[in-house]
Amino acid sequence: MKHSNPHCLALRRVAIDTYKENVAYLHRDCQVYRSEGFQALSKVEVKGEGGRAIFAVLNVVDDPGITEPGQLGLSIEAFDQLQLSANAPVTVGHAKPPGSLHAVHRKIAGERLQPGDYEAITRDIVELRYSKIELAAFLVACSETGMERDEVLHLTRAMAGSGERLQWREPLVADKHCIGGIPGNRTSMLVVPIIAAHGMLIPKTSSRAITSPAGTADTMEVLAEVELPPGRLNEIVRAERGCLAWGGTARLAPVDDILISVERPLSLDSPGQLVASILAKKIAAGATHLLIDIPMGPTAKVRSQSDALRLRKLFEFVGDRVGLQIEVMITDGRQPVGRGIGPVLEARDVMQVLENHPDQPRDLREKSLQLASRILEFDPDVRGGEGYTLARDILESGRALEKMRSIIKLQGDRDGTFKIGPLVHEVKAPHAGSVAAIDNLQMARIARLAGAPMDKGAGVELFRKLGDTVSPGEPLYAIHAEFEADFAFASEAAGINSGFSLS
Amino acid sequence: MKHSNPHCLALRRVAIDTYKENVAYLHRDCQVYRSEGFQALSKVEVKGEGGRAIFAVLNVVDDPGITEPGQLGLSIEAFDQLQLSANAPVTVGHAKPPGSLHAVHRKIAGERLQPGDYEAITRDIVELRYSKIELAAFLVACSETGMERDEVLHLTRAMAGSGERLQWREPLVADKHCIGGIPGNRTSMLVVPIIAAHGMLIPKTSSRAITSPAGTADTMEVLAEVELPPGRLNEIVRAERGCLAWGGTARLAPVDDILISVERPLSLDSPGQLVASILAKKIAAGATHLLIDIPMGPTAKVRSQSDALRLRKLFEFVGDRVGLQIEVMITDGRQPVGRGIGPVLEARDVMQVLENHPDQPRDLREKSLQLASRILEFDPDVRGGEGYTLARDILESGRALEKMRSIIKLQGDRDGTFKIGPLVHEVKAPHAGSVAAIDNLQMARIARLAGAPMDKGAGVELFRKLGDTVSPGEPLYAIHAEFEADFAFASEAAGINSGFSLS
Repeated sequence: MKHSNPHCLALRRVAIDTYKENVAYLHRDCQVYRSEGFQALSKVEVKGEGGRAIFAVLNVVDDPGITEPGQLGLSIEAFDQLQLSANAPVTVGHAKPPGSLHAVHRKIAGERLQPGDYEAITRDIVELRYSKIELAAFLVACSETGMERDEVLHLTRAMAGSGERLQWREPLVADKHCIGGIPGNRTSMLVVPIIAAHGMLIPKTSSRAITSPAGTADTMEVLAEVELPPGRLNEIVRAERGCLAWGGTARLAPVDDILISVERPLSLDSPGQLVASILAKKIAAGATHLLIDIPMGPTAKVRSQSDALRLRKLFEFVGDRVGLQIEVMITDGRQPVGRGIGPVLEARDVMQVLENHPDQPRDLREKSLQLASRILEFDPDVRGGEGYTLARDILESGRALEKMRSIIKLQGDRDGTFKIGPLVHEVKAPHAGSVAAIDNLQMARIARLAGAPMDKGAGVELFRKLGDTVSPGEPLYAIHAEFEADFAFASEAAGINSGFSLS
Repeated sequence: MKHSNPHCLALRRVAIDTYKENVAYLHRDCQVYRSEGFQALSKVEVKGEGGRAIFAVLNVVDDPGITEPGQLGLSIEAFDQLQLSANAPVTVGHAKPPGSLHAVHRKIAGERLQPGDYEAITRDIVELRYSKIELAAFLVACSETGMERDEVLHLTRAMAGSGERLQWREPLVADKHCIGGIPGNRTSMLVVPIIAAHGMLIPKTSSRAITSPAGTADTMEVLAEVELPPGRLNEIVRAERGCLAWGGTARLAPVDDILISVERPLSLDSPGQLVASILAKKIAAGATHLLIDIPMGPTAKVRSQSDALRLRKLFEFVGDRVGLQIEVMITDGRQPVGRGIGPVLEARDVMQVLENHPDQPRDLREKSLQLASRILEFDPDVRGGEGYTLARDILESGRALEKMRSIIKLQGDRDGTFKIGPLVHEVKAPHAGSVAAIDNLQMARIARLAGAPMDKGAGVELFRKLGDTVSPGEPLYAIHAEFEADFAFASEAAGINSGFSLS
């Protein structure tokens, strides 16, 4: 039976940002909506001419100002993915469930999955065939009790193979990664210049803040451009042996970004997913030697020595089998590192350490030297135990600063563009005592409310750290902000809970 | 610290239907969006004056035609829930994760949850504090291997208590329920008049079709009004001992509707959730005696005798402990029941059986008598084994027809409003043979494509059933439709896969 295609609709871009969830909009009076038996939240497949297709969740619209009956609307990211212009003819149909969903159902039923299952699942996820709730189903099925060590290995390999893979053609490509959770912990910006100054290759890419007041990419951006095309990044690394760039331009283990968009709101932090996610990105980035920093403390991500050890062993198990040389350091995560929280304030800390400034934050310097020393000892020519002295020499001689300046120059100097936020509120000690605890989570929250990381000059400047004694009325820290509303909210939050406990 | 509330926004109704997922829309340039560190897909709490609050998922808008910078947009259902008018001042903030999410995390970690956990979870779900992905996490954690029999019982009780509860103040309130999946299976419309004619109370409420071509409510609506206010329904039941109405007007176990909106797209059909969902609704509806119909067959929901038995035992376990008298019948689910698939065609089948028409579909009559006989035997005055004869007498004497007419009259007669769809396409036997299999799923799909249940006259009329012999070119069934586009799609689908296998 032949007939003209009554399912053809005109494509329309609907200016709604639905992040990693594609949304399609159909008017309730649209003939296609009526005849296909779609429902709001149905998963649909949208096809353009030339066969390009995307998957989306359906929303039903009663306002022709958003989508008319003869149109198919797509949210911003979905529209971009389809790579067609407005008014292009498209068809829409029921999306078949992704083929690998059978494996997810087997996982839910308690089965152990095979490497091929994890490959099929990651492929379908990268192609955006999974809805948010299907992603949640997969993640929960793999959580906690759900995944054997072998399966973490299979998942790591599948994720590493899900996108591009950088090739450095050198025997030793170093990298470092911190599992996060500690404000001000900008060690990468010190470790990279030290390691690169030694001559070891360390092509470091970092993320922007997601729930924290600054990621390394946000802070480095105060000093230099961080959004660089892959070709340019490659040139810089070849010239300087290192870089400090945003990792979002390369398509490395892209399945991870999609999984994170569901893990985060669910507060799912299973060790298996964490290890697979980090190692997959590093394998795809071409690393051969990797240092992992696991901060431990009462308000850190990892809160007990036994949890830290278990996580370390899982990193080692998978790392050994994928051919990554892994060192894991369990570090002090009881309080923020350095003085600044927020991009400009953190960048100032970093530069003070590089410049051997008398006022430099000693804890940031010391932690960075410890991490750098372990990476330096990956070098077969560095004698065991001598990494620390070597790292300190590179820092104190000014060679690390010089290296940082070269990297900044090549990435594109931005120094002076951003200033510390002009609105200042000091939070003071209510009584005499010594600082017994600093809550990482509350300090991060105050800095975010003040405007970090979007307002680069916003954040928190710490004057006192654990063990310091204070007199009544002495300032514990200052809040900096650029805008009045943010300033008021951050100050109010600090008034309710300062984040500091005095003994 | 005091300051005027810069978070105040003007409420706006955005005409987008997002079903059971509330969506809030903020413009990207909105000061609140900037300062709160929201992201697309953040979960937010929207509060109006008077303290009424709802939860929603955030979408970020770049088009002031949808939401302006000073406005907060809400999707249709969310707007209705807040019960405020457009332009009312509202505030928006980060939603705290629901308190019971800790219990979900414990379930994910493999713990057995307590009655109080299930109560807290269902309470938070009913108050719409759970996002779709949190619902998915709960459902997956409870799936398959996840829930002990005791936990199914706790969940059933918690769900039953999550909404209203009808009180009939009689010792025997009968009900029946089919787990679904078989097209044309309209036995309720025969069982209810038979049981009510006997004098037993059977206040039957039914659902509309969700993924099927007709629910009992859709088919009954061909003959009578089904959307009745609870008070009126109560009067009808008191007068006639039974009714056949849509169940959506009473707020019975409302948590179930929310869970289903995630279970369905995930194809999660765990026995625990199924049993809890069905029994909770029946308890809330005030039933004391319940007959469960489990059709079994290769294209039914339950496909093996062992699965059917396991399900039966779980129904019995929970039923006994919540004080419901339960009978479970495992029935023939190898093919559609009756001749019609789609509201008008099914209503015709039902009326033919009630009228003892010579052409009546014998399988629908026989199955309905079997089910009715088991319910009649709930009556202490009916001798064991005599239910069938009694049911047949009530049907053949015309007392069931008379009862049905009374119920139709009281609910509001609509007979004659709807006709069988005028577009007809016959699907014919490609060769001689006998009918070896009929695919329930494909027949349902063809009927839906033809327009059922939205177009009441659309659907499929079966001329041959399992075991019937056919000559080449003889019609197997006819497709009926009201609109050309639907007609073309249904005919095309039947051309690709007729749903019939001939030996």
